[in-house]
Amino acid sequence: MTIATVLAARDDTRLPTRIARSRLAVATDTGLRTEDFDAWLAGRRAAHRFTVERVPLTKIDGWSFEPDGGNLVHRSGRFFTVEGLHAVIDGREWQQPIIVQPEVGILGILAKEFDGVLHFLMQAKMEPGNPGLLQLSPTVQATHSNYTGVHRGAEVRYLEYFIRPARGRVLTDVLQSEHGSWFLCKSNRNMIVETFDDVPPDDDFCWLTLGQIGELLHRDNVVNMDARSILACAPTAPVELGAVSSDMDVLSWFTNERARHDVRARRIPLAAVADWVRTDDHIQHVGNRYFRVSGVSVEAGNREVTSWMQPLIEPVGMSLCAFLVRRFGGVPHLLVHARTEGGLLDTVELGPTVQCTPENYAHLAEPERPPFLDLVRRAAADRIRYDAVHSDEGGRFLNAVSRYLLVEAGEVEVGAEPPPGYAWVTPGQLNSLARHGHYLNMQARTLLAVIGLLNGLL
Amino acid sequence: MTIATVLAARDDTRLPTRIARSRLAVATDTGLRTEDFDAWLAGRRAAHRFTVERVPLTKIDGWSFEPDGGNLVHRSGRFFTVEGLHAVIDGREWQQPIIVQPEVGILGILAKEFDGVLHFLMQAKMEPGNPGLLQLSPTVQATHSNYTGVHRGAEVRYLEYFIRPARGRVLTDVLQSEHGSWFLCKSNRNMIVETFDDVPPDDDFCWLTLGQIGELLHRDNVVNMDARSILACAPTAPVELGAVSSDMDVLSWFTNERARHDVRARRIPLAAVADWVRTDDHIQHVGNRYFRVSGVSVEAGNREVTSWMQPLIEPVGMSLCAFLVRRFGGVPHLLVHARTEGGLLDTVELGPTVQCTPENYAHLAEPERPPFLDLVRRAAADRIRYDAVHSDEGGRFLNAVSRYLLVEAGEVEVGAEPPPGYAWVTPGQLNSLARHGHYLNMQARTLLAVIGLLNGLL
Repeated sequence: MTIATVLAARDDTRLPTRIARSRLAVATDTGLRTEDFDAWLAGRRAAHRFTVERVPLTKIDGWSFEPDGGNLVHRSGRFFTVEGLHAVIDGREWQQPIIVQPEVGILGILAKEFDGVLHFLMQAKMEPGNPGLLQLSPTVQATHSNYTGVHRGAEVRYLEYFIRPARGRVLTDVLQSEHGSWFLCKSNRNMIVETFDDVPPDDDFCWLTLGQIGELLHRDNVVNMDARSILACAPTAPVELGAVSSDMDVLSWFTNERARHDVRARRIPLAAVADWVRTDDHIQHVGNRYFRVSGVSVEAGNREVTSWMQPLIEPVGMSLCAFLVRRFGGVPHLLVHARTEGGLLDTVELGPTVQCTPENYAHLAEPERPPFLDLVRRAAADRIRYDAVHSDEGGRFLNAVSRYLLVEAGEVEVGAEPPPGYAWVTPGQLNSLARHGHYLNMQARTLLAVIGLLNGLL
Repeated sequence: MTIATVLAARDDTRLPTRIARSRLAVATDTGLRTEDFDAWLAGRRAAHRFTVERVPLTKIDGWSFEPDGGNLVHRSGRFFTVEGLHAVIDGREWQQPIIVQPEVGILGILAKEFDGVLHFLMQAKMEPGNPGLLQLSPTVQATHSNYTGVHRGAEVRYLEYFIRPARGRVLTDVLQSEHGSWFLCKSNRNMIVETFDDVPPDDDFCWLTLGQIGELLHRDNVVNMDARSILACAPTAPVELGAVSSDMDVLSWFTNERARHDVRARRIPLAAVADWVRTDDHIQHVGNRYFRVSGVSVEAGNREVTSWMQPLIEPVGMSLCAFLVRRFGGVPHLLVHARTEGGLLDTVELGPTVQCTPENYAHLAEPERPPFLDLVRRAAADRIRYDAVHSDEGGRFLNAVSRYLLVEAGEVEVGAEPPPGYAWVTPGQLNSLARHGHYLNMQARTLLAVIGLLNGLL
């Protein structure tokens, strides 16, 4: 925190306008031109040698199953472990493997104004689990191990801007949760720091406006999860004056959702997890549902360390994440769902209207499938405002792809008074909640970034 | 959440003015006159028969030590348990008994406008651990057991206004943490609901303005903890335009505090807790420090159940909670401390500048005692803006009293750039954080309520 002898204004009232200007700027003079993006990304891919190969879990170098309890751990005792979770949510009980990584990483985007327009320093970063390997990523993705040197690798470029933000102006800085189905109470620091230094981009980096990043969000598997998460926390959404529910009523509804669910979860040894089995290759569900834990061997030319092996979480099917959208009094509203997940720090977070892997429910009759799933799947093309595939963080997840949708709904499909656990809120209301941690889950943040960065979407 | 066909304004812009009007109203025509308060409270005390007697822990009816692990539990399996906690904070390791109560209670104050001034329905409520037994309490204090009927007692009066807030207008509704040193991840719902119904107060209830409650906060052990906690969450503080740090910089500092501390805590069996012993009478620390677990037998004439026994946490000494106050550019600022506590849900919360039990440090030299403790204790009378004793919730704590202070500091004692872990923030900044959960700890909320309700204090 910087201390001024003169008082600072409590609110940076110019920021929303500056963000809006960057969102409207779909071209840039200073940064990378959008039409050059594909060639640039291909160039970065060609400039390094990346190979990722599957390796049996029993053969991943540096990792082993603990003799006592069977947890999957690294020999250094750092990075993360795969352990077991016993969850009881509102009486429903199950066990599953879960990633335990009780440390806070930094996800940071450096911003700088060129010709009056905020640009953001994005990185072409390889992660072994990414479809396409390289994706457009934040300036910095540093685990605690990264910045304390456990990797024994090269320094993380530009990290100093986020460790000592006094060098610039902090535009966003909030702890947000990772996936509650796969991580135990994991959160990362989502930061945007504006710099006034002269910062020439390194080879794997480029300056882009928000409007340009928005356009790239139309493409599948280009903008990585961490970038989407951070951008959702910036004040990109309009501040609507009116909404179906006041901000206080939204908070009160959310508080009630937190209070009414009984979520109890505890760590158990991985070997004790019922209904999951360990083979040489994987840890997997006996019904082959949900996800597997798989191993990969990685060679990379531009990473801190040039080769390593590691386990990754590999979902079994593609998931579907969709917000239903309705206009009330001309103002777009999103139907949010207060979701319980076993690994969340605090009971529930707000997710999209639909968030599931449809094939897990294919054998059920429609009334037993998740609410609104079939409505979203059957939506006519003219109701679909957004449709793209994005993947989850490739440092932990292997080909974890989700189809993200924004679907217009009408009075016929969903009334103004939705079922328990659901509420109509505006993008601006979600955006102001995203200033604080643990209100919005990762999937809701991806869709909020889409809404905030794409011009004229809703 | 109420759904209107017409959109609601996102912000209730009239509320801060209405709150300010109630704060300025130190007299009332409709409610209980302040000069009649003592007689009224004495009358309520006389109207009921209350006795609280100490009972050895081994003799508290309905409670027993589990054969396996020694946790102290109620025969119904409900209410709460006393278990063990193993905490490791930034490498410092210890064990202690801790209250486990994984359910969310409702703390609610009903509000209503009379003659244009908001009044609040307060209750003279007996809790066995309260000094003086009866204190001025919220309209409703309901544990989950209360409102689901585990007590098998009488209904909780006025509870319906908080279970179905659609009957009124929600002014405040937020989950706030209880004490992180005594409770494991416990939070309660802090609510203020304005009603438009005609609500005649029952015998044990009275209508008071915020100004009147503020005056009562000058007295020792009158306004109970839950009432202070709720009132801290209402928008009582001024919205200062300027501050030493912008709101974003305060959030960023707080995020960094959360990220930089390594807090790991896990439940262990009570019998396994090192350095604590169980006698017939108590569970206590071998050095007789910190607190004891004691038993009481209660008879009460106006409670849902007329007699019961229970364990209570009994602190060994009186604690001291103080904010240092400094003006920058004419605007008062409080020196907050980002405190780690073993039972907090998420690493740190903001506490007062000083929060400790001084006698635990009496044997140490001054530089080894908590920062600013001696500065506060030596403060000249003309530096002290507020000085009163308040107790913690008497349903769980026995004579848990703290001296609360607001002490003016100068440039000489604390610079504009305080030590790591401390920051200067305005009451308005703290108040806007209190709209969300887990930013402010209980002790900071008490002092924030004091600042928000007492006219002309800072």
